[in-house]
Amino acid sequence: MNDTQPQSVDLLIEARWVVPVEPHAVVLENHTVVVRDERIVALLPIAEARAAYAPRERVELGEHALIPGLVNCHTHNPMTLLRGLADDLPLMVWLQQHIWPAEAKVMGTEFVRDGVELAVAEMLRGGTTCANENYFFPDVIGATYRKLGFRAVVGLPVIEFPTAWAKSQDEYFERAGEVHDSFRGDHLISTAFAPHAPYTVSDESFERIRVLSDQLDIPVHLHTHETAHEVEDEKARSGLRPFQRLQKLGLVNDRLIAVHMTQLTDGEIAACAAAGVSVVHCPESNLKLASGFCPAEKLRAAGVNVAIGTDGCASNNDLDMFGEMRTAALLAKAVAGDAAAFDAAFALRAATLNGAKAIGLEARIGSIEVGKQADFAAVRLSDLETQPLFHVISQLVYATGRHQVSDVWIAGKRKLAARELVGMDAAAILERTRTWRERIVSA
Amino acid sequence: MNDTQPQSVDLLIEARWVVPVEPHAVVLENHTVVVRDERIVALLPIAEARAAYAPRERVELGEHALIPGLVNCHTHNPMTLLRGLADDLPLMVWLQQHIWPAEAKVMGTEFVRDGVELAVAEMLRGGTTCANENYFFPDVIGATYRKLGFRAVVGLPVIEFPTAWAKSQDEYFERAGEVHDSFRGDHLISTAFAPHAPYTVSDESFERIRVLSDQLDIPVHLHTHETAHEVEDEKARSGLRPFQRLQKLGLVNDRLIAVHMTQLTDGEIAACAAAGVSVVHCPESNLKLASGFCPAEKLRAAGVNVAIGTDGCASNNDLDMFGEMRTAALLAKAVAGDAAAFDAAFALRAATLNGAKAIGLEARIGSIEVGKQADFAAVRLSDLETQPLFHVISQLVYATGRHQVSDVWIAGKRKLAARELVGMDAAAILERTRTWRERIVSA
Repeated sequence: MNDTQPQSVDLLIEARWVVPVEPHAVVLENHTVVVRDERIVALLPIAEARAAYAPRERVELGEHALIPGLVNCHTHNPMTLLRGLADDLPLMVWLQQHIWPAEAKVMGTEFVRDGVELAVAEMLRGGTTCANENYFFPDVIGATYRKLGFRAVVGLPVIEFPTAWAKSQDEYFERAGEVHDSFRGDHLISTAFAPHAPYTVSDESFERIRVLSDQLDIPVHLHTHETAHEVEDEKARSGLRPFQRLQKLGLVNDRLIAVHMTQLTDGEIAACAAAGVSVVHCPESNLKLASGFCPAEKLRAAGVNVAIGTDGCASNNDLDMFGEMRTAALLAKAVAGDAAAFDAAFALRAATLNGAKAIGLEARIGSIEVGKQADFAAVRLSDLETQPLFHVISQLVYATGRHQVSDVWIAGKRKLAARELVGMDAAAILERTRTWRERIVSA
Repeated sequence: MNDTQPQSVDLLIEARWVVPVEPHAVVLENHTVVVRDERIVALLPIAEARAAYAPRERVELGEHALIPGLVNCHTHNPMTLLRGLADDLPLMVWLQQHIWPAEAKVMGTEFVRDGVELAVAEMLRGGTTCANENYFFPDVIGATYRKLGFRAVVGLPVIEFPTAWAKSQDEYFERAGEVHDSFRGDHLISTAFAPHAPYTVSDESFERIRVLSDQLDIPVHLHTHETAHEVEDEKARSGLRPFQRLQKLGLVNDRLIAVHMTQLTDGEIAACAAAGVSVVHCPESNLKLASGFCPAEKLRAAGVNVAIGTDGCASNNDLDMFGEMRTAALLAKAVAGDAAAFDAAFALRAATLNGAKAIGLEARIGSIEVGKQADFAAVRLSDLETQPLFHVISQLVYATGRHQVSDVWIAGKRKLAARELVGMDAAAILERTRTWRERIVSA
């Protein structure tokens, strides 16, 4: 008998490789992640773990890399039901003649619920375990994520015109407060303010958001500097660039999640770094809508917290964070004119730990460290497409397809097992999706 | 009994959707492609085909789009064995400290053969049925493609320094002639001259290539205008931009396959259009090596034949033509500043019929038309990731992953059946790939 009894735990995951993300750019070989009560309690060599722990379940991943679950830092997931409805169109034609009319036909709690469910299925099958969500009906969105056991930050929308969600400025704030309260203390769902954009939100609303985000200690999730046009328009209106206006309003701080940011001066980049702003880079959306090129490498080099998002499926047209990591890494090199820019390890960090930091969850998720929540994706690297294998992190970013994700856990619970969704009915989701399609295309 | 007997044929493929590419942007619903003796003999509604033909085999693809097999118009497929060996490095460090030393260790007929075999497996699993190949040992390369039943244009290398393939200028041409002769009349393999680049090939060699490509009626497959640096260097050497030098040498004509072309004046674009030059756009390679941005939309708008290539796996790091189509379509919009640029239908055309045209095979492949070779990929669109489905071609380009390719045919022969390689031993390929990895990493 040993001196010490093996310790009871819930789960041992034994992986050929573990990429913890923190410490940076490290690949551990033949390591075990030990999980108890939703959390990581140890990370150590397989043989040592077998001697020290008595798990309820042990999972062997002999050809896999285990990585932190990916954090999709900008989504409009109900819009997954509008995937590919209208492509290859100028922004205003796309919005005014296709997206808004379609939304007007279908918008409501059922659309939101079913869209999020389709999105969760897609995200799990692609290794994503957390979404920073931005859409109407955050009450239904949050309830749906919670029901499905998926981690999310739910945006509390504020926009200066009436929608199906709220009719007046006061009502937006009232409902925001209610939704925030309803998820207080939830282990998977938290909230952020989600003012739409500088050009659709008044100074008065921004000031209320500043005060409330401070009181509630929640992030502010905002589209801004998406296009040169947006910047020029704001200058014509207020005499300021949007970022300057946000500075004046006191919103440029470490709670700001600034999405897109394709138009930035060096001074603005330095100001983002100094203030602790997080920038969410959505490279595929920026390309597809011809919005511009985010200076992602300059931001990284300046020490800005750069995260990655897919944007909504009506514009991207997927929730593929593997694809988005790759596009971010590739595009940044060309924009910077430097093949060494935005390397693979940084791309993976942007898609995990930096995303967690942006949404205020870096103490809980984003890396495989003791004490953090057990959110993981296992990626099979034995496919022909990822052989030969010289460098695990490079392979994950530059050669791996999301379909190589075999297993996913959120808070220690298995959500994808050998590519099958756990506790979700894929056939029923597909059936509902087809029904929505019919409703959307019918007159 | 009917008036007419059903006609004997080899194969009926009944697809939910057929995207023939020519006519452009058309999607046929519930159509059958009829195949006899390697060729397409009819394309008609399913019910009509069932009445008119008696096939040896009938394949039902109820949830699939059938598209022409993809044409990867620029590859260095033996280098698939170097996938991800060295990433995130400046071009010269990458070449001189990593790729060339690795090649020096392994270069030879076995490396070339095994690399092509791994590449063919990957290409088939991704819907690619033809490669425009550019590497040393074209004899072995051609023989390997032929043995595997894969369609390829084999580049006949010319470069101004000795390699394992040839020691002198004369020997390059001698061996080129031999290889060309050995594949004369082959139904799958043809040849092209493959002078490496303007900066590594002399005027004298280019003149010989011009004369010979004319006599043999074969294309000239050339990297050029890949970087601003290349253009500046040539100007310093000869006083001419590389394209001007090629014009002077008589190589700017409809046999020229100009690869990369990130640096182009409007005059050069117009000259490409007028001369019938094909441009092969390799967007992911150009991004990853920070080479520059090819003006793909300007080329398209000028009427230049734009094709798509992945480049080699040492720089990309995959042979994923679905990914490359998507990147081409996305990037072109941002470069052009126009969300309507390089639309999905054009991207699919670039990856099929335009590729066929570039390599001189547009009469045989690249579209699903009666009389053409039966080269197809079937793409399953019922996955969650491609639902809902509003527009088939958009979905193929913007949302589909290459793992959704279920079946592939080349010259009427099934090469991939329900994702399984036909007549290839995937386990043996993987085993050989692992052995090469060990040889490459060992001192």
